[in-house]
Amino acid sequence: MLEELKLEVYKANMKLPEHHLITFTWGNVSGIDREAGIFAIKPSGVDYDKLTPDDIVLVDLNGKKVEGKLNPSSDTDTHLVLYNRFPKIQGIVHTHSPYATAWAQSGRDIPCYGTTHADYIYGPVPCARVLKESELDNYEYNTGVVICDTFEKRGLDYEAVPAVLCRNHGPFTWGTSADNAVHNAVCLEECARMALYTELIDPKASPAPAALQNKHYFRKHGANAYYGQ
Amino acid sequence: MLEELKLEVYKANMKLPEHHLITFTWGNVSGIDREAGIFAIKPSGVDYDKLTPDDIVLVDLNGKKVEGKLNPSSDTDTHLVLYNRFPKIQGIVHTHSPYATAWAQSGRDIPCYGTTHADYIYGPVPCARVLKESELDNYEYNTGVVICDTFEKRGLDYEAVPAVLCRNHGPFTWGTSADNAVHNAVCLEECARMALYTELIDPKASPAPAALQNKHYFRKHGANAYYGQ
Amino acid sequence: MLEELKLEVYKANMKLPEHHLITFTWGNVSGIDREAGIFAIKPSGVDYDKLTPDDIVLVDLNGKKVEGKLNPSSDTDTHLVLYNRFPKIQGIVHTHSPYATAWAQSGRDIPCYGTTHADYIYGPVPCARVLKESELDNYEYNTGVVICDTFEKRGLDYEAVPAVLCRNHGPFTWGTSADNAVHNAVCLEECARMALYTELIDPKASPAPAALQNKHYFRKHGANAYYGQ
Amino acid sequence: MLEELKLEVYKANMKLPEHHLITFTWGNVSGIDREAGIFAIKPSGVDYDKLTPDDIVLVDLNGKKVEGKLNPSSDTDTHLVLYNRFPKIQGIVHTHSPYATAWAQSGRDIPCYGTTHADYIYGPVPCARVLKESELDNYEYNTGVVICDTFEKRGLDYEAVPAVLCRNHGPFTWGTSADNAVHNAVCLEECARMALYTELIDPKASPAPAALQNKHYFRKHGANAYYGQ
Repeated sequence: MLEELKLEVYKANMKLPEHHLITFTWGNVSGIDREAGIFAIKPSGVDYDKLTPDDIVLVDLNGKKVEGKLNPSSDTDTHLVLYNRFPKIQGIVHTHSPYATAWAQSGRDIPCYGTTHADYIYGPVPCARVLKESELDNYEYNTGVVICDTFEKRGLDYEAVPAVLCRNHGPFTWGTSADNAVHNAVCLEECARMALYTELIDPKASPAPAALQNKHYFRKHGANAYYGQ
Repeated sequence: MLEELKLEVYKANMKLPEHHLITFTWGNVSGIDREAGIFAIKPSGVDYDKLTPDDIVLVDLNGKKVEGKLNPSSDTDTHLVLYNRFPKIQGIVHTHSPYATAWAQSGRDIPCYGTTHADYIYGPVPCARVLKESELDNYEYNTGVVICDTFEKRGLDYEAVPAVLCRNHGPFTWGTSADNAVHNAVCLEECARMALYTELIDPKASPAPAALQNKHYFRKHGANAYYGQ
Repeated sequence: MLEELKLEVYKANMKLPEHHLITFTWGNVSGIDREAGIFAIKPSGVDYDKLTPDDIVLVDLNGKKVEGKLNPSSDTDTHLVLYNRFPKIQGIVHTHSPYATAWAQSGRDIPCYGTTHADYIYGPVPCARVLKESELDNYEYNTGVVICDTFEKRGLDYEAVPAVLCRNHGPFTWGTSADNAVHNAVCLEECARMALYTELIDPKASPAPAALQNKHYFRKHGANAYYGQ
Repeated sequence: MLEELKLEVYKANMKLPEHHLITFTWGNVSGIDREAGIFAIKPSGVDYDKLTPDDIVLVDLNGKKVEGKLNPSSDTDTHLVLYNRFPKIQGIVHTHSPYATAWAQSGRDIPCYGTTHADYIYGPVPCARVLKESELDNYEYNTGVVICDTFEKRGLDYEAVPAVLCRNHGPFTWGTSADNAVHNAVCLEECARMALYTELIDPKASPAPAALQNKHYFRKHGANAYYGQ
C-alpha cells in the first residue's frame, strides 16, 4: 500500500544522516498522500543503517496505524497535528540538529540576518513556547498544537515559514514533499549556525533590511520567481 | 577466557574513533562480567588501528590482571573503583572528547538545557572536584573515589546519571554494557556541544523546566517508557 | 565553442563542494576568455552532482547568453559588472560559505590578524554596503556596482584584494583564473574562521603590524616573490 | 642520500592533511640526521597530493641545500635556527592549523587548562613576540631566533615544551622525530581548540593546579613514566 510514498519517505529519512543532521535515531521524516489521507513515517528508535522501506509505518489522519509491523515514531502525534492544521504541507522533518537545537534551547527566534535565510524562510524562525506541565500528558500531540497556535497567534504563513523551534527541544521543518522538508531542515541548520557566528562577530547585529529579505524570498518563490531552470 | 566479552569490549573501543570521540589513544572502554567478577579493558597507549580483540586485558575486581600480554589502560584503577561502587553498571568509557572536556576544564556542571540531554541524563552532568595534591599518588584510584563520592554527597542515582566530568581532566560515562556506555559518551559530547552553543546564543539561558525533563527521561526509561520498539 | 574554458569552469565549480564551501546550489564560479569577450558560468540552481561541462553557459560582456540550453546563474549580472570594471580578473566565485557569510551578515570588514590572511589578501577584506531599496530592482547588477564602487571609493587595488563581502549576503572572490578564484574563496573562508576565533580569544585583538603584512604579501606576490618553485 | 630520512619526512608531511592540520600547502615538516648534520624538508609550495619522497630537499646545518631538484620550504631558515639552537630535537612541524593560529593571532599564551595539555606540554604554550620591522629582512631566520630567545628568556625547557606560537603567524612544534613533531602538532591544535571552548564556557577559567599538571606530565615522560607498554 502506498509503496511509492513509503520509498520516498525512506529515502528522505536516509538523507538526515547524510547531511549530518542527526545522531543515532534522533530524528524522523514523514510524507503524506493527501488524497488517501494517510502519511508514512519512520518507525520509533530504529537505527538508520538498519532501516528499510518496508519498515516505514502508515498512519491515517486520525492517528490510527493502518500498516506496518513496527511502532511509528514517538513523535507521530506531532506530525498528525501539523498535517491536520497545515493542510498544504506534504512532508515533515524533526531533528535535534545542533545549531537549531541550541537556538531552541535558548528560547530565541532566529533572526533573519541575511539572504541565505531569506531565500528559504520569510522572516525570523519562530520559537514556540515551552509546554505547560498540564500539557505534558499528551506531550507529542500538544507539541503540535503549540506549534500551530504559535503560527496562528503571530499571523505567520506556514508555507512561507517552513520551520519552527520547539522551546527546550528542537526544530521541526516541513515542505511540499518529504524531500523538500529535509531540504528545509538543512537550510535551517545552516542559517542557525551562521546566525550564531554573526552574533559572535557583532553581538548587536541587526536583521537584514526587510526589502532585501523580500527581494531574495521572491527571487525563489511565487509568480515572479526567476531562480533555477 | 571470556572471549565474548573481550570481543564486545574490542568493538566498543573501536566505536570511539568512529564517533570522533578520541584523538590518538586518548580514551578507553571496559566491560564487565559481573558473575566472573572480571572486567575487560583496552591496553594502555595502543593505537586504535593496531588494536585486536586479543589485546584486550582482563582484570579482576581487586585490580589484579588475570589475562593479557599487555599492560591495561593507565586508567584501570578508575574503572575498578567505579565497578566496585556502582554495582549495576556493566561498561565504562573514558575519553577526552573536546566539548565535554572543555566543560570539565571550566569546572562547571553541564546544565540540562533541553530534551536531547533529558532523554539520556537525568538532571545536570556533575563536575567532580579536582584531586588534592595528597590524592595524586594514587591518582587513578582516587579519581574513581572522587567520582563516586560526588554521587553520594549529591544524592545522585548513577543509573539515571550515567556521566561525570572530572575537573581539569575529562568525562567518564557508563551504562548497561560497554556499547551502551559508548552510546552515552556520544550523547554527552553532543549535549556538551549544544549547551555551549546555547550559552553563546543566550548567556542567561535557563535549564529546561523540570517537568519537561522528567517527561523526556521517562519516555525512554522505566516501566512506562514508550520510545522504540 | 570555448570548450576548454567550459571544462575549466566546470572543474572549478566542482571544487566548491569538495572544499565544503557550499550547501546545495548556493554558489557559482565563472571564468572568462578576455580575447573573445565571453565568460562561462554555472547554470542557475543545478545540483552539483548532476552538473556536466555541457551545462556551462556562455555569456558575453553585454550580458547576452551566447551558448547554452540552461539559464545562467541568477548572479550572472554581478559577474558581468565585475568583469567589466575589473578588467584584469579572469575568474569569479560566489558562495555562502558560513564564516565569510557571517562576517557579511555582521557588516564588518575582516581585519587582517595574521600572515595566513596577508599571504593572499592585502589588508582587510572590505564589507560593501547593503543595497538601497531603489537598487533592488536591478539587484544582481547593482550588487556588482556596489562592490566596484566600494573598491573605488576606498582606493583598493582589486588585484591585491581579491575578495569582498556583500552586506547581509555573502562573499565574492576573484583571481587570475576560475581555479585561482576558488583558491581565494577557500583562503577567505579559512581567514574568516580564524578571525572569529581570534576575537573570541581576545575581543580586543589588533591586526598584524603593517610591515609583517607587507612582508608576507610580497613573499608570494610581485617581482620579489620567493615562495614556491 | 639519506633515503630513509627522506621517506620518513615525506610520510610525516603526508600526515598533515590526514589530520586536517593544513589547507593547501600551508605547512611543512622536516626531520634531521644529527650525525650527518643534514635535515630533510618539504619543498616550497608543492601540493600534498603531488608530493613524492624524491621531492624532499636535503639541507645542511649551515642552510646550504645539499640535494634536491626543488627549492626547500620558504620556512627552511626557521627550521635551521631551531635545529642549531635546540640540539636535541629531531623533527619540526609548521602549520597554520586554525585554533593554534587564532591563539597566535591573539598574541596570548595557551593556558594549560587540563590533563590533555599536561600530557604533552609542560605548562602554557608560549606566544613569541612579533618580529620588529628591522627583523623582517631576514624574516624566516629571525622567526627562529625569536622563538629560541623566547625559550631562553623565559627559562623554558624545549624538550618539555615542544610547541610555540609565532605572534600573528602560527605554530611550530618539534619532537624526537618528524613523526613525533606531527604528533605534537595534533595535540597542540586539540588543546588550542579546547582552551578556547573552556574560556567560552567560563571566561574566568583558571589553569589546572600545578600538581595535577605535573602528575600527568610525568605519567608519560621521564624515568617514572607508566603510560603505555
